[in-house]
Amino acid sequence: MPELRKDPILGRWIIIARERGKRPTDFVVEPSKTKGGFCPLCPEHEKTTPDEVLVYGREPWMGPNSSSWKLRVVPNKYPALVIEGELDKQGEGLYDRMNGIGAHEVVIESPNHEDQFAFLPHDQMILTFRAFRDRIRDLSQDERFAYVMVFKNYGKSAGASLEHSHSQLVALPILPRMVVAELEGSLAYYKYKDRCVFCDIIRQEIQQDIRLVCENDKFVTLAPFAPRSPFEMWIMPREHHSSYINQDEASLSALTNIFSESLRRLDSCIPGVHYNFVLHTQPLRSKSLGHYHWHFEIVPKLSSIAGFEWGSGFYINPIPPEDTCRYLREVEL
Amino acid sequence: MPELRKDPILGRWIIIARERGKRPTDFVVEPSKTKGGFCPLCPEHEKTTPDEVLVYGREPWMGPNSSSWKLRVVPNKYPALVIEGELDKQGEGLYDRMNGIGAHEVVIESPNHEDQFAFLPHDQMILTFRAFRDRIRDLSQDERFAYVMVFKNYGKSAGASLEHSHSQLVALPILPRMVVAELEGSLAYYKYKDRCVFCDIIRQEIQQDIRLVCENDKFVTLAPFAPRSPFEMWIMPREHHSSYINQDEASLSALTNIFSESLRRLDSCIPGVHYNFVLHTQPLRSKSLGHYHWHFEIVPKLSSIAGFEWGSGFYINPIPPEDTCRYLREVEL
Repeated sequence: MPELRKDPILGRWIIIARERGKRPTDFVVEPSKTKGGFCPLCPEHEKTTPDEVLVYGREPWMGPNSSSWKLRVVPNKYPALVIEGELDKQGEGLYDRMNGIGAHEVVIESPNHEDQFAFLPHDQMILTFRAFRDRIRDLSQDERFAYVMVFKNYGKSAGASLEHSHSQLVALPILPRMVVAELEGSLAYYKYKDRCVFCDIIRQEIQQDIRLVCENDKFVTLAPFAPRSPFEMWIMPREHHSSYINQDEASLSALTNIFSESLRRLDSCIPGVHYNFVLHTQPLRSKSLGHYHWHFEIVPKLSSIAGFEWGSGFYINPIPPEDTCRYLREVEL
Repeated sequence: MPELRKDPILGRWIIIARERGKRPTDFVVEPSKTKGGFCPLCPEHEKTTPDEVLVYGREPWMGPNSSSWKLRVVPNKYPALVIEGELDKQGEGLYDRMNGIGAHEVVIESPNHEDQFAFLPHDQMILTFRAFRDRIRDLSQDERFAYVMVFKNYGKSAGASLEHSHSQLVALPILPRMVVAELEGSLAYYKYKDRCVFCDIIRQEIQQDIRLVCENDKFVTLAPFAPRSPFEMWIMPREHHSSYINQDEASLSALTNIFSESLRRLDSCIPGVHYNFVLHTQPLRSKSLGHYHWHFEIVPKLSSIAGFEWGSGFYINPIPPEDTCRYLREVEL
């Protein structure tokens, strides 16, 4: 059983997922890749994954886990957290721990092994954003969970251990530290100004027009004012919404358009670049929040100087976002 | 001039150090190494570094920057922050920025290019810990600075761009986010319990004896209860002190002994492992703090699954610290 442990000074939770390694020297080796080998996420290999929890694009007369589909969501075969059991919160002197209860799911974004997320056609890419919405809605019914983390690791240097295009959902019994910090920071601003800081950022960025990478009628993509990494981008809805899961189809479609354009602009600037993206949304079952605004953060993985963090929450970035924004705008798509 | 910028939601500061890169494609390339090439930190090459700000082991009749020395501290030739100028704090709508004023220094830990920090003899290694103390003392006289970050990147995957054994000091006009979080977290504990959380951790760890890697009369090395990475270690003084800079020679000597032993135990478990260490100490010119306790954190850089952070302040660790502690204790030195 995995375990959740809390740092007594910072309140930072970490997962101890014992199953993942055994001997000290196991940790120096990179995780094995499927390059040219067997891919458990490809069609015809559905039996090698746990049973799917969501599927799109399968004809109604086909059976579950059969090989006709456009997108599948399956539990992770090597989950960081497990779905069955009780939290069993315990103290150990001044320390706090609980069982590693949660869900860890894999969104298989396309049946085609060679597809890259950034270049998926609109009708295919939208399925991923719909799957995020539908899975968070479903997982929010489990009262043990406080938050669903949604993220994608694209490329080996961004932590991807499988080539086949996929993203991940992790349902957690606690709020991640970064979410708490964002909620607190935006609430402090709200109390002072009576406005959403994210709405104010969007207004100022549209007016200044020096960090606005692209936009459509429902979304904007910004190079944030204080980016951790060169070419970092935030994709934000123009309208104030604290939760991702209330989006309708028109919103998902506009999100797909701007996400696709933003990633293709990034790839044109730095061909083949690896990146992570993370969805930032409100805690599960929270009422709508006036101070919080859902968004995606896309962080490219670049050289070790770029975006280097000194273990103190302090980043150094060799290029201002106004410059990366200009590059991102100027590329031909 | 580098620039400091603050994220308006999280209060996270980042440095924009323009000098470090120019074109988008520059960022995919790893920084160049000196492997087999010219080393600017070696003796006889003193003219290739800026003038030294501290030297140990030079005969008094030799001139400054001459080639007889045991340890040198020099300004970084490509500093992330610059020493000259005013902070010139400015707002830009809802954003905050200031000039990137600070000091960025390199501690050249040995004249011998082939030396590895973990295996330096006692008389050589102690010079590094003395240099940290003496440089922080000196930099604390500059009223513009709020904090000195002291850290070492060992190995390419830990961000080192030069082979020659060295560590770095960065004097900052603001407090890094992690320091603020530690100060706040430990203060909250202090207000509740009227005790230092770090002192309580040390007491509990000595009593439980399952995460205590090694110890001497003045220091302990722990595998922390909630580590970000396998084989993470914290080195802490037994006696309560909030500031590193009040250490006497006996303390520096004991610190050198336990640091050397801890790093050699780590290297025996995972030969050649790359790592970062960071000094955590109180802000400059602060009075002694009852709730804060200086210490070093050593974080190995391992495989991309191990210690993987999902961009949300949430780490997954494949091995519990009780197991790494057992490995670290059992190795033959």
